[in-house]
Amino acid sequence: MGKNKLKITPLADRVLVEPAEAETKTASGIIIPDNAKEKPQRGVVVAVGKGKKDEPMTVKEGDTVLYGKYAGTEITIDGKEYLIMRESDIFAIL
Amino acid sequence: MGKNKLKITPLADRVLVEPAEAETKTASGIIIPDNAKEKPQRGVVVAVGKGKKDEPMTVKEGDTVLYGKYAGTEITIDGKEYLIMRESDIFAIL
Amino acid sequence: MGKNKLKITPLADRVLVEPAEAETKTASGIIIPDNAKEKPQRGVVVAVGKGKKDEPMTVKEGDTVLYGKYAGTEITIDGKEYLIMRESDIFAIL
Amino acid sequence: MGKNKLKITPLADRVLVEPAEAETKTASGIIIPDNAKEKPQRGVVVAVGKGKKDEPMTVKEGDTVLYGKYAGTEITIDGKEYLIMRESDIFAIL
Amino acid sequence: MGKNKLKITPLADRVLVEPAEAETKTASGIIIPDNAKEKPQRGVVVAVGKGKKDEPMTVKEGDTVLYGKYAGTEITIDGKEYLIMRESDIFAIL
Amino acid sequence: MGKNKLKITPLADRVLVEPAEAETKTASGIIIPDNAKEKPQRGVVVAVGKGKKDEPMTVKEGDTVLYGKYAGTEITIDGKEYLIMRESDIFAIL
Amino acid sequence: MGKNKLKITPLADRVLVEPAEAETKTASGIIIPDNAKEKPQRGVVVAVGKGKKDEPMTVKEGDTVLYGKYAGTEITIDGKEYLIMRESDIFAIL
Repeated sequence: MGKNKLKITPLADRVLVEPAEAETKTASGIIIPDNAKEKPQRGVVVAVGKGKKDEPMTVKEGDTVLYGKYAGTEITIDGKEYLIMRESDIFAIL
Repeated sequence: MGKNKLKITPLADRVLVEPAEAETKTASGIIIPDNAKEKPQRGVVVAVGKGKKDEPMTVKEGDTVLYGKYAGTEITIDGKEYLIMRESDIFAIL
Repeated sequence: MGKNKLKITPLADRVLVEPAEAETKTASGIIIPDNAKEKPQRGVVVAVGKGKKDEPMTVKEGDTVLYGKYAGTEITIDGKEYLIMRESDIFAIL
Repeated sequence: MGKNKLKITPLADRVLVEPAEAETKTASGIIIPDNAKEKPQRGVVVAVGKGKKDEPMTVKEGDTVLYGKYAGTEITIDGKEYLIMRESDIFAIL
Repeated sequence: MGKNKLKITPLADRVLVEPAEAETKTASGIIIPDNAKEKPQRGVVVAVGKGKKDEPMTVKEGDTVLYGKYAGTEITIDGKEYLIMRESDIFAIL
Repeated sequence: MGKNKLKITPLADRVLVEPAEAETKTASGIIIPDNAKEKPQRGVVVAVGKGKKDEPMTVKEGDTVLYGKYAGTEITIDGKEYLIMRESDIFAIL
Repeated sequence: MGKNKLKITPLADRVLVEPAEAETKTASGIIIPDNAKEKPQRGVVVAVGKGKKDEPMTVKEGDTVLYGKYAGTEITIDGKEYLIMRESDIFAIL
């Protein structure tokens, strides 16, 4: 999943992410807790921008990433939902 | 469409975009979802500024781009509606 | 119009603009739409500052420019109304 | 007027200005309009700071300048009212 | 505790911290006071990002750190709760 | 007055000032006007920090300075009231 | 007081301070006034961070410092109360 080439090139430090389904326990054992604090979301990177001047990107296609609940903007391509966000919205690579 | 030369030169990092019509499914299969989050808009770049100091532009004339719903300022030239926005308002090139 | 030498030197990145009259269709075919979004205004540059450190100016005297509706500060010289604004308030040169 | 040496040295990018009286039409023909927008004020520079690091000053003693209505802080020296403001509060030299 | 290798790589200047239990007196004698001011929290660093451009990280895995009460975002891995935060949210290493 | 050595070293770009008494007309003829605008205050510099990186200080001990009404923080040393403020809070040297 | 080595290393430009007791007149004659303005507090530096990139620290262990009333975060170590704050929260060294 998530590695079919999409005809989309994020600009600057933006990343296109295919969000994981809203499972509460993932294969790697990460549970998204259900409480008052902002909950990170998990997804797979499907496209990466070229970075900003003098700031190369760290994430690459295929990385599973954690990001904030309200990160990014939704778009739908060929029936699948994606999020486009800045790399700085990504907390970690799993 | 969108490539007839207009007599307009965007300043600095600004881009003139001809918005696509409000179709819900595009030729390339991108569907703009109808929900509470900000929905990206699609359009074609028709004029590009020279960029800011030490920051060349990435988009070029003819690129189809995604941008935020509230990006830019509307202008009408020869009866067609355009948007003028900063390149940083553009999420991705399709 | 707009090219008679005025005894005024804008400071830094400021530009003195003689606004066009509030016509709804201009000679070059640009129509300012009448809707809820901020409408750009059109005018002619009559004086230009020397720019800020390491940032030379792009617009020059005689340029017809588009700028935001609320850009600049009004002044009247010899009975004509002008606007003084920063170059960054200018969207494009027509 | 305005060129009698005052024993005051503005700091950094500050400028001491002697405001013109509230005339509505000046000798050089500039009329300050009476409407809703912020109206620029006119005055004569009587003292100038040394500028900030790597940013020399543009205005000099004796310049007649335009500045925003709410620019600066009032002080009175020997019975005359002055304003002390930053050079960036000055729009133009007349 | 806290040193089992987790399959998570914090991005940029982020740090993954395993919070200490809410004891009021720790082994090293630090008591978290109970009053109106923000109370620092204690935890163990379990993963560290590579830092931002030209800003290497100071904390390392295994460090016990103090951080603000509202620092970071909660995630749960294999049944344990962690916090992911920026290094600048960390006050001190104990 | 104000030149007795105090055992206090302001940090960075801070300045210790002994405020003048609230006279309405000073020896040098400066009258602090009584109106709605912020009124500058007058005082004597008694201690000066070493400045910030690459920004040496301009004021020196003994200078009489003007500063904003709400500038600085009050401290009392040996029964006298002082203000400690940043140099950027100082408008001018008299 | 305040010089027993604590096992705590403040990060970056942070400083650990042992606040003086709330005396109204200190040994060196400084009286903290009781009025509406923010009152500086006095304390002794007990641990100092390594500073931020290209910004070495000025204060050192043992310095008595003045800082704002609301500066820092309280922590208690071995029954004593400390404050951890940024060096920029410190006004002066006494």
